[in-house]
Amino acid sequence: MNTSAEQVHQQILAAQAAYEQARDVEPVIRASWLEAVASALAGAADELVGLGRRETNLDEGRLRFELHRSVFQLQLFSSEIIAGEHLGAVIDHADPQWGMGPRPDIRRMNIPLGVVGVFGASNFPFAFSVMGGDSASALASGCAVVHKIHEGHLQLALRTSAVVQEALAEAGAPHGLFSTVVGRQAAEALVDHPLTQAIGFTGSTSGGRALFDRASQRETPIPFYGELGSINPVFVTEEAWDSRRNAILSGYASSFTAGMGQFCTKPGLFFAPVQDAEDVGALLAQELQSVAVAPLLSPKLREGFDASLKNVRSLPGVEVLVQGDEAEAPRPTVLATTADAVMAAPEILEQEMFGPATLVIQYRPGTNLAQLASLLEGQLTATVHGEPDEDLHELMTVLRERAGRLVWNAWPTGVSVTYAQQHGGPYPATTASSTTSVGTAAIGRFMRPVAYDSFAPQQLPPALLDNNPWKITRRVDGIHEPAGQKAENL
Amino acid sequence: MNTSAEQVHQQILAAQAAYEQARDVEPVIRASWLEAVASALAGAADELVGLGRRETNLDEGRLRFELHRSVFQLQLFSSEIIAGEHLGAVIDHADPQWGMGPRPDIRRMNIPLGVVGVFGASNFPFAFSVMGGDSASALASGCAVVHKIHEGHLQLALRTSAVVQEALAEAGAPHGLFSTVVGRQAAEALVDHPLTQAIGFTGSTSGGRALFDRASQRETPIPFYGELGSINPVFVTEEAWDSRRNAILSGYASSFTAGMGQFCTKPGLFFAPVQDAEDVGALLAQELQSVAVAPLLSPKLREGFDASLKNVRSLPGVEVLVQGDEAEAPRPTVLATTADAVMAAPEILEQEMFGPATLVIQYRPGTNLAQLASLLEGQLTATVHGEPDEDLHELMTVLRERAGRLVWNAWPTGVSVTYAQQHGGPYPATTASSTTSVGTAAIGRFMRPVAYDSFAPQQLPPALLDNNPWKITRRVDGIHEPAGQKAENL
Repeated sequence: MNTSAEQVHQQILAAQAAYEQARDVEPVIRASWLEAVASALAGAADELVGLGRRETNLDEGRLRFELHRSVFQLQLFSSEIIAGEHLGAVIDHADPQWGMGPRPDIRRMNIPLGVVGVFGASNFPFAFSVMGGDSASALASGCAVVHKIHEGHLQLALRTSAVVQEALAEAGAPHGLFSTVVGRQAAEALVDHPLTQAIGFTGSTSGGRALFDRASQRETPIPFYGELGSINPVFVTEEAWDSRRNAILSGYASSFTAGMGQFCTKPGLFFAPVQDAEDVGALLAQELQSVAVAPLLSPKLREGFDASLKNVRSLPGVEVLVQGDEAEAPRPTVLATTADAVMAAPEILEQEMFGPATLVIQYRPGTNLAQLASLLEGQLTATVHGEPDEDLHELMTVLRERAGRLVWNAWPTGVSVTYAQQHGGPYPATTASSTTSVGTAAIGRFMRPVAYDSFAPQQLPPALLDNNPWKITRRVDGIHEPAGQKAENL
Repeated sequence: MNTSAEQVHQQILAAQAAYEQARDVEPVIRASWLEAVASALAGAADELVGLGRRETNLDEGRLRFELHRSVFQLQLFSSEIIAGEHLGAVIDHADPQWGMGPRPDIRRMNIPLGVVGVFGASNFPFAFSVMGGDSASALASGCAVVHKIHEGHLQLALRTSAVVQEALAEAGAPHGLFSTVVGRQAAEALVDHPLTQAIGFTGSTSGGRALFDRASQRETPIPFYGELGSINPVFVTEEAWDSRRNAILSGYASSFTAGMGQFCTKPGLFFAPVQDAEDVGALLAQELQSVAVAPLLSPKLREGFDASLKNVRSLPGVEVLVQGDEAEAPRPTVLATTADAVMAAPEILEQEMFGPATLVIQYRPGTNLAQLASLLEGQLTATVHGEPDEDLHELMTVLRERAGRLVWNAWPTGVSVTYAQQHGGPYPATTASSTTSVGTAAIGRFMRPVAYDSFAPQQLPPALLDNNPWKITRRVDGIHEPAGQKAENL
């Protein structure tokens, strides 16, 4: 079943050829390919969700929503590239009065990088897998994709891939624009290949760092967009705790157990002014009773979860607040420690438990939350439950510097695909904190700018022509012009 | 004179403290700091240019222009951050009808990274030195800068630094926001320090790669924006050659000798349909006679130039077209070879000669220029001299994939600071091809996005408030809104 290095080489050559054939197509054509893939995936929903049910222990509602999300993502990216947002077109007309001396005519646009390698994640068989965010954004940018399948849902991935390839072919996209490989040797061959121009990855910190190092140490280094580990702290202020403790605990219980705690945005740390640990434990236990449990995604993942839970439970100062169990479908566990213990040994904040477990950190009234927060590593998200008029500037500033998304009086699980979305964050949350793997800004990761200096109109690409034939959004002589209208002045 | 590791540590701590004090100031305040630095540099022009004259072998006109360019750059960045372009603010209001399910209110903006290390270059004592593009863009982004001085112009750098620090202090910027260090040990300490968040570098391929590796292999890797080597090929089509050979040769002679050939955009390769090598040599020799020569920037650089010239001259198939000399102020050298020799041994295209020398590649009529171009490595620039109506799509596409800036019927030396400018390119031209070190887009390198999810207005930063108090440019619900006006709907 594993793809040989030679086969990977052949697929990359085919991907490069397809990229070269497709790199200059008009955005509306490329958008029609994304739409075709979206329709095909939606049309195959019953079959794909059925395969997912067999391989992943995820329930039908979750799988259907995740597939719907992936379909929507393709449609949103389609509209985004029709508007030309990804091209980042900028036109500076020649200006003899320019402040540093006469300015030639300079125009810039983004071009796709070429062949991109994408690694599927175990925990989202649709949204971060074969046609998940990385693949969709790479295709939207104009790149070709070679996707490394996550073997946790191999049959689903193979079938999804077939649906995607068939839809692309029917829509007229060149053969080879999207293909999949299997196995560790194939993964390494993909990162090493001279034609591979970038990698999108979602997975573990250790595996991701090893591949990041590999990509950085190539003769020609390539960008490695890796989403690694995150523990997603939640801070509850004293005021919020006093005014709505029960509602917050209820939301917490349901967020950390969503998807059996196997979300990269799972709230794994919960800082609260708990004074009545027994009460809180009882309340959480009650909330958790109604949580439906299922086996974890894979035996390997389960093994890792058990080990990390055991490790955190054994740390000095850590107690069990809600006892889970070790059944095949494990009941959730809530551990607890104190802010004092954390100040004494901050590494307790760096232990990710990927599964249904979380750690409550009890802080005493008057504790400086910003100081506690400053002990945190880089995170995908940081959440604050507080009252609107509290002065939380210091805490927010510390969290802002440690996370890619701040959440206010809500929960970090559930990441909408939008224009403003940011799913990223400082290392070790990701290896490229200035980029996002969710939302329309994800497309730009797989492009780079090229300037056209002093060009004759006959030699310019359409995106940079004065009359704007593609009607895309551009910045002209410093002023932003919206998409959808041709320039009037020419 | 060299800065000790301990002193570097202290400066970085001071820079971090200054960054923390300044990170939230309103753009107009930060802009006033840039303006103050610009005014102070302009005011100190006579003194600074005088120092430059003593240390660099560069003539007064060149130095004055370069200082003027640096001053203008600060002013342009000032207007750019007042418009909020660097913040990349995006607002998605909550939308219960959003296609993938109800969307919460999500808002994104860029925040500065923190302390940035900047390495000065030997060849631009102002434009890529103490207050050159990297420092100016890092300060504009809201970062603090620790600048590693290039010792080729030590006294000038120290004096420039004093002028900058004084101007910042008078304008009210926090102490420590900008400082300088000297020496190799200090350079390494700067790259290694845990508080250093990014590096801007301009220099040699070998030195740059070593520092890139160092930055990538840190426990927490940081982005390394390195501009390394580039040979900047020029392609002359047969039609252009036939119609205006002499004008092209004249432009070529003056471009490759500008700044004694010590520009990163110097045209080092010139592909032309030369059939009359003797004539061309004579014409070039005549053009070069009027070029004023000067010693190179430093003895070390001269040593490198001599070695690289000797090396290329000794390659099989390479001849001397115009004989230079080995005087302290050396006359320029033009070497020549054939497209056939290049096809047989493409590594001849990878030998940068940093100084007044260049290589003409004679191609036969009918040669496929795109095929020749496909042998090139990554470049900062690629230039084509052709006729407007020629079909050069294939050549342009190959060059576009190998360069950051394409130049049409003009010369790559001279890089204007504008909105559309792109000074970058695929490795080994740079280590970060999706970024630019010249132009307003350079500011974004030192920032990363943060999303605010479901926030109460009282807790939002000003840039993301509905009423847009800073009057910055933003994208709201997918639509771009220009700077300079408050939102009307709220």
